[in-house]
Formats: sequence, C-alpha cells, structure tokens
Amino acid sequence: MSLPDCETLLLKPEAGVLHITLNRPDCRNAMSLQMVHELSAVLDSVKEDPGVRALVLRGAGGHFCAGGDIKDMAGARSAGADAYRQLNRAFGAMLEQAQNCPQVLVALLEGAVLGGGFGLACVSDIAIASSEARFGLPETTLGIIPAQIAPFVVKRIGLTQARRLALTAARFNGSEAERLGLVHFSETDSAAIEARLQEVLGQIRQCAPQANAQTKALLLATETEALGPLLDKAAGQFAAAVTGTEGAEGTMAFVQKRAPSWAQ
Amino acid sequence: MSLPDCETLLLKPEAGVLHITLNRPDCRNAMSLQMVHELSAVLDSVKEDPGVRALVLRGAGGHFCAGGDIKDMAGARSAGADAYRQLNRAFGAMLEQAQNCPQVLVALLEGAVLGGGFGLACVSDIAIASSEARFGLPETTLGIIPAQIAPFVVKRIGLTQARRLALTAARFNGSEAERLGLVHFSETDSAAIEARLQEVLGQIRQCAPQANAQTKALLLATETEALGPLLDKAAGQFAAAVTGTEGAEGTMAFVQKRAPSWAQ
Amino acid sequence: MSLPDCETLLLKPEAGVLHITLNRPDCRNAMSLQMVHELSAVLDSVKEDPGVRALVLRGAGGHFCAGGDIKDMAGARSAGADAYRQLNRAFGAMLEQAQNCPQVLVALLEGAVLGGGFGLACVSDIAIASSEARFGLPETTLGIIPAQIAPFVVKRIGLTQARRLALTAARFNGSEAERLGLVHFSETDSAAIEARLQEVLGQIRQCAPQANAQTKALLLATETEALGPLLDKAAGQFAAAVTGTEGAEGTMAFVQKRAPSWAQ
Repeated sequence: MSLPDCETLLLKPEAGVLHITLNRPDCRNAMSLQMVHELSAVLDSVKEDPGVRALVLRGAGGHFCAGGDIKDMAGARSAGADAYRQLNRAFGAMLEQAQNCPQVLVALLEGAVLGGGFGLACVSDIAIASSEARFGLPETTLGIIPAQIAPFVVKRIGLTQARRLALTAARFNGSEAERLGLVHFSETDSAAIEARLQEVLGQIRQCAPQANAQTKALLLATETEALGPLLDKAAGQFAAAVTGTEGAEGTMAFVQKRAPSWAQ
Repeated sequence: MSLPDCETLLLKPEAGVLHITLNRPDCRNAMSLQMVHELSAVLDSVKEDPGVRALVLRGAGGHFCAGGDIKDMAGARSAGADAYRQLNRAFGAMLEQAQNCPQVLVALLEGAVLGGGFGLACVSDIAIASSEARFGLPETTLGIIPAQIAPFVVKRIGLTQARRLALTAARFNGSEAERLGLVHFSETDSAAIEARLQEVLGQIRQCAPQANAQTKALLLATETEALGPLLDKAAGQFAAAVTGTEGAEGTMAFVQKRAPSWAQ
Repeated sequence: MSLPDCETLLLKPEAGVLHITLNRPDCRNAMSLQMVHELSAVLDSVKEDPGVRALVLRGAGGHFCAGGDIKDMAGARSAGADAYRQLNRAFGAMLEQAQNCPQVLVALLEGAVLGGGFGLACVSDIAIASSEARFGLPETTLGIIPAQIAPFVVKRIGLTQARRLALTAARFNGSEAERLGLVHFSETDSAAIEARLQEVLGQIRQCAPQANAQTKALLLATETEALGPLLDKAAGQFAAAVTGTEGAEGTMAFVQKRAPSWAQ
C-alpha cells in the first residue's frame, strides 16, 4: 500500500483496514482545504487496492470534525467570491468521492460533528457515535448555507428531519442521532465504541471484498437509475460474481462448511 | 405587511412570525375551496416579505383539519366531473406552494389531522403534534383516493409507511406520528405544545432569514436535481451567501462573540 | 377465480383474500425458479379479479424464505453464466410484478427471511413479523451480490440502513426489523400474528377495492414521476373516482351512516 504523505491526517493500515484520523485537534479537526485534498489523495491511493476492505475515519482529541476551517474562510475572503466557490466545491467533490469509495467506510463520531463534519458522517456506510457526541447544522446561524452537504444529509436522514435540523440549527446527541437514523449505533463510552467497531470489522471480514464493493455501488445506483435497466445490469453482475473467483470460493466454502478465503 | 382579507382564516403577525389559524371550527376546519384560495393568497402576500421568517399554522376549536369539505364536493357533483378535477388540483397546487414557501412553516397538530389535513401537515418544515391528535388517510373507505396528497405523504414518511396507512385507513395518534417520522414532536398538553413552539421559534430567530430560505430551497431541490450540477450551483450560492450581507454579519458576530443582527 | 396449478405453493382463497403459502419446507422455502414462475402465474391470474382484494403471503414450516435455491444454482453452473443471468433476472421480474400487483400484499414473516426472502418481504404493502424471525442479507459472505433485491431494499428501509445491512450481512430479529421500518408490526407469537393479520384484513375490507388499487399505483408512481404532471393526472383520477361507482356508494354510505357495500 502506497499512501500519500499527510500533515492533517494520521494513517494506520492494519489487517485490511486503513485507519484515518483527522488530526487537527487544536481546532476540533476543522475541515481545511489541505485536509480535503489529503483525504481525497488517500481515497485515491487505496481505490484500486483490494487489500484495503474498510476505512475507519475518526477525529483526534475527542472530536470528529467541527465544520469548515475559519482561517481558510478568511483567506478566501481576501481572494474574492470565486475562491469561496472553489473552496466549497472541493469539499463537496471529496464527499462524492468518499460516498463512492469501494471500501466500507466506517465513521466513529465523538464530540463535535458539526456542519461539514456532519456532512462527512453522512457518507459513511456505518456510523458509530458516542451517545454524548454533539451533532448540528449551524450554518444559517452564521448567515451561510450547508451548500455541499445538503444532498448527503437529505439522503441520509430524509427530507423531513433534514429540514427541521437545517432550519433551526438544533443540536442533538448521539442517542438522538441513532433515533433519527443518522448513525447506526450509539455507545456510551470509548470501550463500547471500540467493541462495536471490532464487531463491525469482524462482520465486514466475512464479506467478499469485490462483492461488497459491487454491492455498495449497486445500492448507490438505485438512487439515480431506473428500476428495469438497473435490474437488467445487476443480473449480469450477479452472473459474473457467481461464476467469478469470489463466487466460486464462497459457494464452495459454504458447501464444505468452512470459512471462505477472505474470512481467514 | 399587507395581508389579504380572509373569511376562513385568522391571521396574526407577531415578531417576525405570521400565525395562521384555520377557522371553520364547526366543520373541524374542513378544507373548502375558499380556504384553499385564502391560504394561497396569504402565502403569496408574504412570499417577498423578509420580515416574515416563520409561519405557524394551526386549527381553531381543537382540530387541525378533518379533510376536504363535503359541501364543496356536493357543489362539484352538480357541476360535473371537471369541477371535481379542478377542485382537487387547486388543493394540490396550494400544497406545492406551501411546500416551497421561503418561510419556515411550523404546523401545530391537534385533534383531527385527516385526509387533506394530513397532506397539509406533510408540507410543514416542523410539525408539533398533540399526543392525542388523530391522524389518518380515510379516502379509500369513502371510495375516493388521496390524489393530491399522495406524493407529499410518501416524501414525508416514505413509501413503506405510506402504503400501509393509505391502504388500510388506519388511525393513529401523535405519539405514533412521531415514531413514524411524520411529526418532529409529540406533546402531552397545550402548555407543552406552546413551550415547544416557543423553543422552535427561538431557534429559527437565531438563523439568518435569507440563508434559511436558500437552505430550504436547496434541501427541496436535492429531491429532483442531479447531484453534480446541484453541488456546482450550491457552491455558487455558498460564495454569494458568505460574501453577502448576512454572511458578513454572521461571521463577524461569531468572531466578536455577539448575537448577529437577525437574532436580536 | 381460476388459479394455476402449483407444486411449490399452497393457495387458499377465502372471503376476498388469497392466501399463498411458499411450500418447500424441506429447504426453508428457498426460492426456486419454479417457485418464481408459479408466484408470477398466481399474481397474473388474480390481476384482473376484483373479487381478490388482498394477498397474504407466508411460508410453510416456520420459515418465510431462506433465499435463492442452491440446486437451481448448481443447474445454472453447468449451463453457463447466461443461465445465472436469466435465473436472477426472472426473480427480479417477479418482485417488480409483486410490487405492482393491484391487491394489498400482506407478508407474514417467521423464521428465516434471508436474501431473496428479504427482498420479497420488501415489496409487501404490510409486513407482520414474528419478533424472533431472522432477517439478513448474507449474499456477499458467499461471494455473490444482492443483485435483484438491492433496489427494493433501499426503497424499503432507505440507503442508510441498507448499506450497513448489505455490507456486513448482519442478522437481526423482528423487533429490530420493526425499528428499522422494514416491517410494520412485530408480534411475539403465532396467535398475536394471526390477530394482527385479522385486524389488518378487517381494515382493508373497509377500503374500496378499486380505490385501493389506484391509490397503491399512485403511491408507487410518486417515486418516479415528476410532481406537477403527477398531480395533474391524479386530479383526473380523483374526479373519476368520486363520480364513479365506488365514490358514489362511499359518499352515500357516509351520509347515510351505514357501511358501504364493499365493507359488508
């Protein structure tokens, strides 16, 4: 695995999993343009790597991510409105990339999960929150808008909940995030978060990597593609999967009552 | 603020909020064509008014709205099928207008929230129900169909719940409405409803009016526009917002640790 | 009612309801190609029958359906990849047909509700689960993909939950299925399931058959058709319904405070 050098991220590959830690604890891991670029470069570097089956994303220092970076904002102000546009769009492009990454993306959400951090949580495949994490969309209290994250928030929790949260900037905790369907698990302490993470990673290891990547792409495609053509295409993918390496190994292992190669 | 004269609605502007009360308590505020026209006229009259940041919609006499008006139905019967079509479509057009109004639309739901009243609840941004409110879609028990409200119901609670409710006409209360994600809050008495309303209005006052209107439009647009072009456009809106009056005031107030002008 | 001969299904018409039992208990009602064809034939045979207002689908022997049939898979393997494609697509076509059937489709979910069985549950209008039923999407643990069911799963429970379940193959019970919005009811024993079924069938009998069929089609159409044209069309359907046989009877019965003809 060849990972890019990063100043704002800590990277730790471990047993088929790449652990990515947002590492700007002094500013609660505010999402700087540099961090956006580095996250994008990391996602690119593992995109074709079948040895990386899951990405675990968390923040250093007790917070996930408090939103956009104030200093970048100030820099853009001096550079003019178009700099803001580019800064904002780059963040959204990274969210699209994270949403579509072939790996299973697991987010561990502690402390501040605000604005852009909230958006980043919304593109994870599995989200595990501390019950005391603080979620919110504070943008309009600052006179700005949740521009790049809006589609991901609506997709994540539905229009009904998204509109209340975005138009009131209400804060809420991890338990409520679980109730709203924003996260899958809410845990009361670090040990429970870690235990849940290990459980989830154990489940992911039972799943064939390519099949998981194809399934993820298929699930995302259901949101934009018409049903009939999508099912036609999916049938072809099914045939290729079942007759391919993973399908042969998986069904063979099932018949032989043993774990398949990828689960060992 | 120049409001239209209304016979079926009570209107009370108060501190940036327009309180609208459906006022036909004798028939549990059944939605007459006149009421549809008056609601539409009120929404039009405040559409461009930056001084109105929220609309609070409720019913007089302990009920929100029991559905379509029987007398209008009778009138349409004598006028022929096309009169029914127009009557029905006018209601849907008003729902579209309410869905898209730039203000935050808050609905207070007590007593009967049936048929058309159920549909009206579904276009609110924030819904606060009495735990004893009675919700339901009785249309097919009358041999008719929830024609104009169907899309708004599906958008509100998803296809899975909508199909059960519409095909069984099951009644349910405010607590269940909260569980289904139809409303955001279920409260046990009038005092609790009022307290929740004041909390919500207080939150809305912290949010910049233009930014909220743009955010609402953006959230709604995510349902119909493709992701990439939407994010491109949103980045431009972000740049305009942050460099505009509200964005300058909001970020300045944040740095100066004071409330922004709109929150005072 | 003229029903097809079936080897894999038990059929029992009763009081406007067709009870369909998946009847391959030896293999936990695994979905064979023959079963797919027979289900499709049954759906076809009642499609135009106004006397059948609901379909109740369940499995024999304590399980709903454990997924695709291993023997069919083996047969397809010898026949080549295209046989897999056709086998898979036929199942999806049956799901589309079941999703769009004019009757109210009620699913009773006990024991294994896995893979293809999970997908079949997702196209029901009303799902009643045993609290001890076992749900899951095990496909990728076998190196294959949930190809035909993916769109129905996402539509049923949303992308957020679908991605976790499909990418971890996590198993869960009926109570959790209710919490996730996959089923409408979770019941603790057979008597409670039966009582719930009778309650639901009683509600369906209050609803006019044609109006219910049109409403179901309309709800499904909201997912693919643009709002304005859909509301235009729906207004015409409303006018036709209210001036038609069911609408006349339903509104008359309402005024006369008696049950309409279809509820007797």
